[in-house]
Amino acid sequence: EIAEALFPPPARPLAGVRLLLTAGPTREPLDPVRFLGNRSSGRMGFALAEALTELGAHVVLVAGPVTLPAPRVAERVDVETALDMHGAVMERAADCDLFVATAAVADYRPMDPAENKIKKNADELTLRLVRNPDILAEVAALDSPPFTVGFAAETDHVEEYARDKLKRKKLDMIAANQVGGTHGGFERAENALTVIWRDGQRELPMMDKTQLARELAQLIVERYQEHHAASS
Amino acid sequence: EIAEALFPPPARPLAGVRLLLTAGPTREPLDPVRFLGNRSSGRMGFALAEALTELGAHVVLVAGPVTLPAPRVAERVDVETALDMHGAVMERAADCDLFVATAAVADYRPMDPAENKIKKNADELTLRLVRNPDILAEVAALDSPPFTVGFAAETDHVEEYARDKLKRKKLDMIAANQVGGTHGGFERAENALTVIWRDGQRELPMMDKTQLARELAQLIVERYQEHHAASS
Repeated sequence: EIAEALFPPPARPLAGVRLLLTAGPTREPLDPVRFLGNRSSGRMGFALAEALTELGAHVVLVAGPVTLPAPRVAERVDVETALDMHGAVMERAADCDLFVATAAVADYRPMDPAENKIKKNADELTLRLVRNPDILAEVAALDSPPFTVGFAAETDHVEEYARDKLKRKKLDMIAANQVGGTHGGFERAENALTVIWRDGQRELPMMDKTQLARELAQLIVERYQEHHAASS
Repeated sequence: EIAEALFPPPARPLAGVRLLLTAGPTREPLDPVRFLGNRSSGRMGFALAEALTELGAHVVLVAGPVTLPAPRVAERVDVETALDMHGAVMERAADCDLFVATAAVADYRPMDPAENKIKKNADELTLRLVRNPDILAEVAALDSPPFTVGFAAETDHVEEYARDKLKRKKLDMIAANQVGGTHGGFERAENALTVIWRDGQRELPMMDKTQLARELAQLIVERYQEHHAASS
């Protein structure tokens, strides 16, 4: 009992909550060697998956190709492309209570990936890309959608683009950050977020991603509980 | 003296040799977030840089974006794009005795990388790519070129493509391997190589990349010494 007083067990407000979380980049192959990628390290998503697990959630993590230590989560599904991630998410989305989309999913993929390494000697090359499915919007558009949290990584007009994404994709919450240049975000240990929901907004200032993940997880709990109370 | 008998100091056949080695992939940005990349882990190049350092060479390593422990080399220069790598190599190539090009340099880069994250809603997108400089061929075509070793990672016709590359780019030696599918090579701990020079060829069977790097380093020493003896 003394130990419990000194180190109280964490509150588990998400006990019993089935949570699906995507993290990392996707890779879209041009051929067996080359791909279209992006600079997401997966660090923010992995930290958030752990923070939400600490709060009691049963977290299924769908992860793109990253080089990070294995996070403490209930289940992990590794994927490579946006189509893989789409499949892994849509199989599970109807059975989850909370969906958190931190992955930087490629918007486009090469139209016809080559089976063998492309041999080209032309001075110029034209690559035809086709649009990938919008995983986040599809989940939010389900008949009984989970509470859905999106992310927006932008180089400019951060808040404006995030507000537009929140409304357009019918999300419950969005966490937006600025990337590129000297800002935090992709490939960095620190980050800052602007978290937006229908009738509120919170600024989480620049800090270590582990701490930031905990603060964001707390905000998610608050909004999720309010949403749950309102709809029951 | 007893310790030296039990642990003889390594022979240093490359003592005094100035060696330039490229390793890893390059990344060609589409915008601040997205890039064209390839699956080279840099592992074979880093292992080879260490093996050649053990043999006494003064190794300058020009490395693309990798997630590997720092190798024991004399100097390391980190680059991101093929143009960066080209600059770093051409600055140093005239002053080196041996050039080993293990990097998987992107053949093409997006013509006009965007300063801000691209916002597109079209179902299809066309990406225009332009050819990158051929670093290996440029070094081999210098007035007094270093002894030049190239690599060829191919999904098919491995030996045929490698022989063609050896002749066309006027290399002294080429190490070829098969990638993709269940073969070793990219993103794996093991690899096998077919090493080809003008009047000879050697097969290095599938093995751990550290051991393979040592065997290849030994072959490079043999060919370099023969070349050196013949030209002096």
